[in-house]
Amino acid sequence: MNGTLAVGVDLGGTQVRAALVDDAGTVIRRAATMTDTQGGPEAVIGQIAGLVDAVLADEERASVVGVGVAAPGPLDDERGLALAIPTLRGFVDLPLVAMLAERLRLTVKLGNDGLAAVLGEWRFGAGRGFSNLVYITVSTGLGGGVVADGRLLRGRRGMACHVGHMTVVADGALCACGNRGCWEAHASGTAFAQEARRRAAGAASSALSAHGERIDAGLVFEAARQGDALASAIVAEEADMLGLGIVNLLHLYSPERVVIGGGVSNGFDLLHPGIVARVVRTAMPPFRDVPIVRAELAGNSGLVGAAALVLPGSAAAC
Amino acid sequence: MNGTLAVGVDLGGTQVRAALVDDAGTVIRRAATMTDTQGGPEAVIGQIAGLVDAVLADEERASVVGVGVAAPGPLDDERGLALAIPTLRGFVDLPLVAMLAERLRLTVKLGNDGLAAVLGEWRFGAGRGFSNLVYITVSTGLGGGVVADGRLLRGRRGMACHVGHMTVVADGALCACGNRGCWEAHASGTAFAQEARRRAAGAASSALSAHGERIDAGLVFEAARQGDALASAIVAEEADMLGLGIVNLLHLYSPERVVIGGGVSNGFDLLHPGIVARVVRTAMPPFRDVPIVRAELAGNSGLVGAAALVLPGSAAAC
Repeated sequence: MNGTLAVGVDLGGTQVRAALVDDAGTVIRRAATMTDTQGGPEAVIGQIAGLVDAVLADEERASVVGVGVAAPGPLDDERGLALAIPTLRGFVDLPLVAMLAERLRLTVKLGNDGLAAVLGEWRFGAGRGFSNLVYITVSTGLGGGVVADGRLLRGRRGMACHVGHMTVVADGALCACGNRGCWEAHASGTAFAQEARRRAAGAASSALSAHGERIDAGLVFEAARQGDALASAIVAEEADMLGLGIVNLLHLYSPERVVIGGGVSNGFDLLHPGIVARVVRTAMPPFRDVPIVRAELAGNSGLVGAAALVLPGSAAAC
Repeated sequence: MNGTLAVGVDLGGTQVRAALVDDAGTVIRRAATMTDTQGGPEAVIGQIAGLVDAVLADEERASVVGVGVAAPGPLDDERGLALAIPTLRGFVDLPLVAMLAERLRLTVKLGNDGLAAVLGEWRFGAGRGFSNLVYITVSTGLGGGVVADGRLLRGRRGMACHVGHMTVVADGALCACGNRGCWEAHASGTAFAQEARRRAAGAASSALSAHGERIDAGLVFEAARQGDALASAIVAEEADMLGLGIVNLLHLYSPERVVIGGGVSNGFDLLHPGIVARVVRTAMPPFRDVPIVRAELAGNSGLVGAAALVLPGSAAAC
C-alpha cells in the first residue's frame, strides 16, 4: 500500500464510524457501530478505540499520520474539547482529543462534523478546485461547512457555519437547540418526515397513509417517484424550504458552488428543480447562477473529511 | 504631514463622501455632496473626481497611495465592476475602477461598503486585535462585513456578507431586493421608522403622533428616552429583531465580537439590552458571551475603511 494513510472517525448521535483512508481520499477499510449515547465518555471512547483497531492492521498503524474525529458541535477544536454535544451523555467540556490520544497512542485532531464534511468534498469530491464552497448535510439535523477564499471557514473556536441554526421563520417550529424557526427545524430530514407523517394521517388517497409512523424520507421520495400527489407536494415544500436557506447562504458566503449531502440528498433529483426555482426567484441577480450539486462522497463526506483533518495538505487550508 | 496617505470614497445612495486618511486611520480632510442618483455614471464619476480634488492639496496628490471606493453591492471587486447598484441609474455592469482610474490618474480599488466598513473598524476601530469579527451597519439598509480567521471574508467576487438579505421571516415584509422577509426589511432604519410612523398614526397618547410622516429613527429614540411608551415598545421590538439576526450571524460566522454602526446605532444604548436579551435567550450556549459593541469610527467606518482598501497592511488581509 502506497501513500500516506489516516483514520477518519465520524462520531454521530446514531452511529460511530471509522475508516482507513489514503491520501487520494479512498476508503480502504470501514467499521461502524451504534453509538452508546447513554454510556458516557469512557464507553464511547472505548467504542472509538475498538473501531480504530478494526480498520488498522498492525503494519498500517506505524504508517498512519493520525486520527481525525468529526463530531457534532459546538466543539472547541483548537483546544480539542467537546463543549456540549446534546445527543451524547456527558460530552460537556470534555477533553476528547487528550483522552483519545492517550488511549490510541496516535495524533488526534477534532473537527466539527460540517467542517469535516466540507473538507472531504473540497479535497476529494464535488468541491474540488473551488475556492468558495458551501456544503450542507440534510439528515437527522441540518449542518454544514464553508470554504471561503481558499480556506476552511472556522471562526472563533472553529464554531462557524452552524447553518442549521439560522432562524428563517421567526417564531416558527421548535428546534432541538431550544430556539424557534431554525432552518433545521423546518428543512431537516426529521422535519421532512414528520410533516409527511402528519399529513399522511388524514389522506387516505395517498400511498403514504398506509405506512403511518414508519414514514421516513425514503418512503416519501419513493411515493413521489410513483406520482403520489401528497408525497410530491411535500417534496416540493421541502425543496422550497431548502432553497430559502440556500439563498441565505449564497448571500452570506458567496460560494461558487453549493454541495448537498446527507440522507435527504438521496432525493436530490426530485428536490433540485424546486431548490433552483426558489433561488432564481428570490436570490439577488448575481447569485442566481451558482450551481447546486449533490455530494460525490455520498455517505462518506464526513468520514473522509475527518481523515483529511490529519492528512498532509489540509493543514495550510485549515 | 508624515506617513502614508490614501483617499477613501463612500459612494452611497444619498451622499457621496470623500476623505483624506492617514495610515493611522485619522481623517485629515473630508468633503461630501448629494449623490446625483439619476445623472448616470459620467455625472457620478464627475462628482467623485470633484470630491477627491477637494480633499487633496497638490503636494498630497503625489504622496497618496490610491483611492479606495466603497459602494453598495453587488459588485465584482476583483474586476472592478459595479454589477447592479439599484439606487444609482446606469450602474449596471459598469467598469467603475477603470473609469475612475483614468479620470483620477490614481490607483483605484473598489470594495463592497460592508466589507470596507468592517475593514475600517478592524484596523482602526472597535474591532482592533480580533481575528473574528462581524460588523453590521443599520441605516437606510442593513449591510455588513466579516473578518474570519484573521482575514476579510470575501467569497466569490467579494460578494459575501450581504447580511441584510438573509430571510428571517419566511413570507415576511417586502424588501427592496424584491424578496420577502429579509432582515433588512424588518430591522433596517427604514423599517424601524416606517413601523413607528404606522403605529404613531393611531396613538394620540404618544409624543410621536404629532410628528406624522416626519418621524425618523432619531425622533423615536428621543421619545423613548423621555419615557414615551409607544416609542419604547418600538425600540424594544427593533432590538429584538436585530438580536434575532445577530444570533444567526453568531452561528454562521462565530465572531469574537459584533460591532454595530450606521445611523440606528445612535440609539445603541437603548437597543443593547434588548439585543443581548435575545442573544442570551436563543443563541446556542457557547455563543452567548460574545460582546456586542458600538462602532468606534461613528459615521466614518466605511469612509476610513475605503481608504484602508489601498493603505499598506490591508493587502495581506484582503
